[in-house]
Amino acid sequence: MVLASSKSTLPLSDTPQLTYDHSPSNISTLCNEVLKDHAIKHSSDPAECFLKSSTKHSPAGEHHTPTTVFYPTTTAEVSSIAKACHERNIAITSFGGGTSLGGALTATRGGVCIDFRNMDRILGVHDEDMDVVVQPNVGWVELNEWLEGKGLFFPPDPAPGAKIGGMISMGCSGTNAYRYGTMKDWVISLTLVLADGTVLKTRNRPRKSSAGYDLTSLIVGSEGTLALVTEAVLKVATLPVNLHVGLACFAELQTAVNVVGKVLKSGLQLEAIELADKPSIHAINQSGLGEEPLLEHPTLFLKFAGGQEIVRAQTQFVEELCKQHSAQSVEVSADKGRINVIWGARKCLGNALVAMKKSESDLFLHTDAAVPVSRMAKLVEESIRIVEGSGSGKRRGWFCANVGHVGDGNVHTAIICPKEDKDAAEQLLSQVQRLALELEGTITGEHGVGLKLRDLLVKEVGQEGVDMMRRIKIALDPKGILNPDKVVRLSANI
Amino acid sequence: MVLASSKSTLPLSDTPQLTYDHSPSNISTLCNEVLKDHAIKHSSDPAECFLKSSTKHSPAGEHHTPTTVFYPTTTAEVSSIAKACHERNIAITSFGGGTSLGGALTATRGGVCIDFRNMDRILGVHDEDMDVVVQPNVGWVELNEWLEGKGLFFPPDPAPGAKIGGMISMGCSGTNAYRYGTMKDWVISLTLVLADGTVLKTRNRPRKSSAGYDLTSLIVGSEGTLALVTEAVLKVATLPVNLHVGLACFAELQTAVNVVGKVLKSGLQLEAIELADKPSIHAINQSGLGEEPLLEHPTLFLKFAGGQEIVRAQTQFVEELCKQHSAQSVEVSADKGRINVIWGARKCLGNALVAMKKSESDLFLHTDAAVPVSRMAKLVEESIRIVEGSGSGKRRGWFCANVGHVGDGNVHTAIICPKEDKDAAEQLLSQVQRLALELEGTITGEHGVGLKLRDLLVKEVGQEGVDMMRRIKIALDPKGILNPDKVVRLSANI
Repeated sequence: MVLASSKSTLPLSDTPQLTYDHSPSNISTLCNEVLKDHAIKHSSDPAECFLKSSTKHSPAGEHHTPTTVFYPTTTAEVSSIAKACHERNIAITSFGGGTSLGGALTATRGGVCIDFRNMDRILGVHDEDMDVVVQPNVGWVELNEWLEGKGLFFPPDPAPGAKIGGMISMGCSGTNAYRYGTMKDWVISLTLVLADGTVLKTRNRPRKSSAGYDLTSLIVGSEGTLALVTEAVLKVATLPVNLHVGLACFAELQTAVNVVGKVLKSGLQLEAIELADKPSIHAINQSGLGEEPLLEHPTLFLKFAGGQEIVRAQTQFVEELCKQHSAQSVEVSADKGRINVIWGARKCLGNALVAMKKSESDLFLHTDAAVPVSRMAKLVEESIRIVEGSGSGKRRGWFCANVGHVGDGNVHTAIICPKEDKDAAEQLLSQVQRLALELEGTITGEHGVGLKLRDLLVKEVGQEGVDMMRRIKIALDPKGILNPDKVVRLSANI
Repeated sequence: MVLASSKSTLPLSDTPQLTYDHSPSNISTLCNEVLKDHAIKHSSDPAECFLKSSTKHSPAGEHHTPTTVFYPTTTAEVSSIAKACHERNIAITSFGGGTSLGGALTATRGGVCIDFRNMDRILGVHDEDMDVVVQPNVGWVELNEWLEGKGLFFPPDPAPGAKIGGMISMGCSGTNAYRYGTMKDWVISLTLVLADGTVLKTRNRPRKSSAGYDLTSLIVGSEGTLALVTEAVLKVATLPVNLHVGLACFAELQTAVNVVGKVLKSGLQLEAIELADKPSIHAINQSGLGEEPLLEHPTLFLKFAGGQEIVRAQTQFVEELCKQHSAQSVEVSADKGRINVIWGARKCLGNALVAMKKSESDLFLHTDAAVPVSRMAKLVEESIRIVEGSGSGKRRGWFCANVGHVGDGNVHTAIICPKEDKDAAEQLLSQVQRLALELEGTITGEHGVGLKLRDLLVKEVGQEGVDMMRRIKIALDPKGILNPDKVVRLSANI
């Protein structure tokens, strides 16, 4: 493919057709070529391949799968695979923790998969510089267990099970984003393998740099479509001291949202502010994933840390505020056991919602809207009106819930429904996503575009924005071999 | 130009020759075309044009200048100019505050300049969301004056006189970066005009987003080579309360550096930590730009803010530490007048150094190295050894000084010398830059690459990194009309 035009963007209509050769003979030749120089573990077992385009939350279902999986151990091996795939027009998807949502792992064109499971080492830590050097398959949970003894921690906290490589790809965040920012704020430099096998490091280890284009930030959130990440230098933070956790229940969801609005306006910087509606709490109780049952009310989960005076001022303010808003109950605790109960309940929420499926084939559908915090109350209020007002949920027996990283305006509206209700449910969630855009927000605060949100992305950044992204994609990956069809369409019918 | 290869990078040897038509007749036709639809102020006065490729610190000298300057007032006007230039193969440089260093404003190929001086309005503020919408020629000093009444402020603080558009282009920072991060941490979204006149907005106003490639971060620091910025949504912070400023002098520079190391290790988060060596303080006194003379010793400038207990703990710790290190004097003050004296001295330092020129033709040369903070002491120590150890300075009567945003590992080593000593001085500064790379740092922490550092950039991100940047440049600007030759070379001889 050539970029023959002098335009700054690449409209889909100008995008030449991509051609792949995924014939068994071509893949077989690829394997021989790659394995000639490197003894890379690999497998062509269909069951194993199927799992690589599947995730815990989004089974591959009818989607395409790769036909060979490689398990490299070094950057050089990844480069060899990419180089050979580039020469032979073979698509590459990559796999880490398998927790992504939205279809980022789907091998739309088949091809091969690079599973990073054998690149899971922490390569070094620089305590004084507050950074750590890791391979892509280090999990954030495991990294934090390792850092804890050093009094350090790595803030981005998506689904447990997520790996650093996937977290970089998806530009993820979690409950700590309100206080600490998202993944891109914690990546100093990346070692990349480009589509043609070129290896480069985006920068050294200084905390700040103006040395040319910010290649690091371009790759964070690019969903594996621009480069494969084989090593990362990450910032780490000082482990919060004097941790307190709070739990506040309200009769009405809107009251909880109003309390959040006042906390945000107060200028007090808590560690986390999370919202769960009544059905979400019911799901936690029902699933048995929490350590103790919680009162089934709209609930705020709060985290405080820092100097004693700061925490005291924050907890007093919040407790008083909750009481003024007729909270059903307010609890703040520094007890380790109680923290595990309360925050453990919050952390299991994603899995608890999935557990509300009545049948294995039920679907777990959800939004990921994020809006300016001043619009957050409106987003929650209207999202509920859209989903409940339709009456579809009640009529069809859906399970609907709202969970929010409300401190940064990010709310997930979830529907669990039989697979035959997919269109009806998606139509409602699409209304919620459009609402987020009207409120000057985004369709995806932390989950990424994947396959699902590509057309809505046009509503968010305009056709010009998407066409600029496509121009970058095809400039860096002219054959479209890296995770094709994600983020931006490369052809009209896939 | 076409990107005919299937590579992921664009080596200089594969870059086809760019052709521009800067003939008077083509420029004249351009003006007629642009002015047909828009009444845009413009000038072809050579003296006026000359100023647009000049900066306070880096006069254009022998460099090329544009032959026409446009003063547009809207995004649509900027788009019209870009579109017409794109059609007619005319290069565009842009101009804001004119404070940049390193040649980013030099019109290497001639062409036209877009001066943003008539796009200097603050378009709106969202108090609750802590963001502000501005045109590119709003100055950070003026923005902060305007925000002060609302209890807000915008942290990035490069040279006074810098405008938001230029600050975005250069990915700048300043004394607040240690505490608040750099420009890229404060930009939420940008309205862009691409090389072919395409207009787009990189995103809405949510605080976080995973909606596709991070076009915002790609543009921040791209030095006007990828797009023209016509509007920006910026984050703002709460104005620090309980501001205290500190001044500590030491007999030896190395002692001051050691104190900084201990402050950084303490985990205390000050607002700013700045270092100036003895010659720097002499320059402040000599220039008369400070309000009162300071003791001529290696000096730390410190800033503290926050709750009373926090500030008390911080100032006590720092005062004690300075005394333990035999400080000649330590002063901490919350008095407004005294804050202006102390911090005013720090802020005038750039101009005070320039004022050490003995003749108008003298050169002000300097590095912008930034290293991991654990390497900062080594960087300062070795930089002095390189510059002083050579003996050139003493022999030739140069003025040499070291100034550092030491809290984030960024140190400027400056030499003021007669222009005939250019090569000798640059050779020493180049050694300092290479030292920064050996210390896992960067050749430019905040000033950008411009023309000067292009070849050293190869040492930092490798030929592959530079070639990836060039690939992006030519993908988005195939004719190379936007600020050509900056950041990456587009031809071997310019």
